[in-house]
Amino acid sequence: MFMSQRRQSRRKQPIVATAPMRRPGAVGIEADSHVAFKDASSSPSTVHALCDTTDNQRLFDYEKRVKDTFDRIEPMLQQVMDLPRDANFEAQAQSIAKRQLGFGLPENILGDSSTGSTEKARLFSWCVFESYRKFCEDFFSEDPLAARAGDDFQSFLQSCGFHLMDITPCADGRLAHIIRYVLRLPQRHVRRKSFAGAMFDIDDSVQKWVEVEMLRHHEASPNAADEPTRYLKMVAYHFSSVDPHHEGCAAHGSDTRKAASAGLAQLQGFREAVENSFCCGASIDLLLIGIDTDTDAMRVHVPDGNGEIDLDRFVDSLELFQMTQQHDAAKARQLIADAVVACAADIAAGMQRFIARIIENNLSQIEYVQHYYGQAYPDTGHAERFIGCGVGFEEIQLRNLMYFAYLNTVEEAAADLDVGIKIFSGLNVSRDLPVPIVVRFDYHGHVPGARERSIAHCRRVAEAINNRYGDLLQQGLLHILQVIRDCRADASLEVLQCSVNDQIAAGVH
Amino acid sequence: MFMSQRRQSRRKQPIVATAPMRRPGAVGIEADSHVAFKDASSSPSTVHALCDTTDNQRLFDYEKRVKDTFDRIEPMLQQVMDLPRDANFEAQAQSIAKRQLGFGLPENILGDSSTGSTEKARLFSWCVFESYRKFCEDFFSEDPLAARAGDDFQSFLQSCGFHLMDITPCADGRLAHIIRYVLRLPQRHVRRKSFAGAMFDIDDSVQKWVEVEMLRHHEASPNAADEPTRYLKMVAYHFSSVDPHHEGCAAHGSDTRKAASAGLAQLQGFREAVENSFCCGASIDLLLIGIDTDTDAMRVHVPDGNGEIDLDRFVDSLELFQMTQQHDAAKARQLIADAVVACAADIAAGMQRFIARIIENNLSQIEYVQHYYGQAYPDTGHAERFIGCGVGFEEIQLRNLMYFAYLNTVEEAAADLDVGIKIFSGLNVSRDLPVPIVVRFDYHGHVPGARERSIAHCRRVAEAINNRYGDLLQQGLLHILQVIRDCRADASLEVLQCSVNDQIAAGVH
Repeated sequence: MFMSQRRQSRRKQPIVATAPMRRPGAVGIEADSHVAFKDASSSPSTVHALCDTTDNQRLFDYEKRVKDTFDRIEPMLQQVMDLPRDANFEAQAQSIAKRQLGFGLPENILGDSSTGSTEKARLFSWCVFESYRKFCEDFFSEDPLAARAGDDFQSFLQSCGFHLMDITPCADGRLAHIIRYVLRLPQRHVRRKSFAGAMFDIDDSVQKWVEVEMLRHHEASPNAADEPTRYLKMVAYHFSSVDPHHEGCAAHGSDTRKAASAGLAQLQGFREAVENSFCCGASIDLLLIGIDTDTDAMRVHVPDGNGEIDLDRFVDSLELFQMTQQHDAAKARQLIADAVVACAADIAAGMQRFIARIIENNLSQIEYVQHYYGQAYPDTGHAERFIGCGVGFEEIQLRNLMYFAYLNTVEEAAADLDVGIKIFSGLNVSRDLPVPIVVRFDYHGHVPGARERSIAHCRRVAEAINNRYGDLLQQGLLHILQVIRDCRADASLEVLQCSVNDQIAAGVH
Repeated sequence: MFMSQRRQSRRKQPIVATAPMRRPGAVGIEADSHVAFKDASSSPSTVHALCDTTDNQRLFDYEKRVKDTFDRIEPMLQQVMDLPRDANFEAQAQSIAKRQLGFGLPENILGDSSTGSTEKARLFSWCVFESYRKFCEDFFSEDPLAARAGDDFQSFLQSCGFHLMDITPCADGRLAHIIRYVLRLPQRHVRRKSFAGAMFDIDDSVQKWVEVEMLRHHEASPNAADEPTRYLKMVAYHFSSVDPHHEGCAAHGSDTRKAASAGLAQLQGFREAVENSFCCGASIDLLLIGIDTDTDAMRVHVPDGNGEIDLDRFVDSLELFQMTQQHDAAKARQLIADAVVACAADIAAGMQRFIARIIENNLSQIEYVQHYYGQAYPDTGHAERFIGCGVGFEEIQLRNLMYFAYLNTVEEAAADLDVGIKIFSGLNVSRDLPVPIVVRFDYHGHVPGARERSIAHCRRVAEAINNRYGDLLQQGLLHILQVIRDCRADASLEVLQCSVNDQIAAGVH
């Protein structure tokens, strides 16, 4: 079955209630505001048979809780800034902050004699960093996105002929939720490395492939090297159905075809590198998908029996959602399987099953967006709350929460960082709010000296950022939190330094 | 046998003739100068029985030829600058250059209206870069340092229980000749990665170890994974017997003990990282050596039967040279073997044979230095001809030819580069000569896009250097040659750009 690129009309029933989502320039809501939204269980007739409404509810509660925290900062701050500077000022400010954010403000900033705008920028940054820190603490201690019990993804993956799923989405914040939300996969069992425009580093990927092969040989992990499974490399490009010419992938000039074809070329380059670097028939499997950042629906470019991918040959999950909506689960599954095979009759059975599974999973996410946000997300464009740069950020599994610049050095990632600063110049600086940047380097605690190197990386990168964006720094509109984390343990972050006040270590307030 | 750290007195006969070696501030000699030097064959009675005088002669001819080329540039240039600027100027200048350097000068610089010092800096840089280019061409096409026929190092290595020898010397130019000269090993069969202070990157080394293991499993290269051989990681620190408190390792404050102990800690860290990262008893073998940069003699810290290294337990090759000097080859070999075993009675037989071999090889180098340079090299300190930075430089196997900053970004290697600039401020800038920098990134031609990435790396690093050392750039005292090379092929360099004149591609003159 050939699916055209033309978007078919969407589900007609508009969703009445919308959840609070910050738009650029808009303010968030207060903790005690009540926004009505329709619960999925109240309209069972419209729910797709393959949709997991329990998972949807849980994922939405989490998304709402996290984003609300960040979005309450600005209005809270405005209230504080509007307070009369009398003897009660500090007490009142603390009371407002604790009521609305759940934590107090650093006394030395409140009692500081700095001008109003610098003070506001410092308080805003401090609140963003503290919210981020608490969010991380929650993520690593409570595991709020744990996959459902019994969902043994690794066994399923191997039964499809793959021993590792490695996906590169674009680094755009609107794709940060791709694993646990869009594809409904357990984030701990999928390798994710984001790059601007999904243009992943082929050398780095070959190294990872080598490491995985070595572990299969040495430790039979995740399976023995003689098991006939392969490394599955996926690329997820993206586009916008609401505003295709402006809100697509910035790295490819919002040109969907260009984004898809660049992703495919990178995948083919990686396969060629593996095949050319090693003899003995070493190779990998490839899969290209495209995500509509407005609906979270996806296109899967189904590979043929030779593993070849065609940009014009794909199945569209939104079309399948509509086509299967009135059917029971068994029939819906059959229609999905048929659609995949119709796309490439000679597709390998394992790949076919894998694709059918991620399409089925994605139907829950389509339902999620439609139910909680309407025909499309209200935040079509960038609406990130802060910039993250460095290596790590496993906890970022939410859409439009963080602009991510994966980097080892500012020198190499200057273009990506410039884009981030430009985005936040619109989102924040234009409203006299600072650009909050988290510099983060995760490390492997079992490698001697790794922690010390991560600390040195943080310091170097923070210094380079300050040098590059000296104007913002001078205006007090650039603040940096330096953190590291041992990525093997379930430990939370270790805060190294915070430009808001170098004396304020997290938790000391 | 415990050998003390005290230096014993050296061979008493001073070598009459010295070869032309540039010292900081000194000028080189002209091509037609004749400097008498004593041929090794004329004093056979003093030659050590284990010394390979044929190899010595060949290595010395090569060293002299290459360094002479670079050292003729400055006096040639002075002659040219002293010429009257009349109608014959260009013809005379070209004639002098061709006679002394073997190549002409770029006409557009000679005919340029720039001031004398800028012109001189450009001409000097151009000559250095052109000499470097020709030197590389010669190296990759003629293989001037090819190991002697029948020297099957890989078999020997495996017979000692190792499948790869990986050595990290300090990046100091006075150790650049360590493989082919100091240790007399074939440079193509030894992995060398230099770092300031020999402080190699443990993460990078673990990656390399993984790659080597994978190739053994996948391709039985260099041997099958079930062969009981191990990865041998060596560190070479250095010290100066002539001026120990000033001309030792700058990265360790000329403190020999500190340099040795830091090297040992890094080795142990690497082993720990391998052991902790992988189960199944994965481990590596370690060896620490120290080089006296004045005599090229070395200390080998002989590991005991458990592979443990003690900073105070080593054999000194200069002591062994003297001890065995009057003996025949068989007896000398026996004494070396005895000395190694006396240092660690339970040493593994393979490690013992390996150490004995490199000590025996080093005796030729001790003889080399004594014969051609006297009791010590005349250039005790830095006397490099140019700075090289980036990844590559396999052809640099000569002492004090190039100051090497191994780097991917200027941001990460700023400290190393600053040291290089400081050295050349003394060597060159103080005499109105520019700092010539070769920016080089080698790539694997079989990896798609690798060449393009190398080109991008060169441009980015050149720009970052120009930004960091803007003062020198403004004065016309900083020049950069950008080159890349496919490191698999025996191809020569590909010149990308030269700041002397962006229009002058190599060979177009």
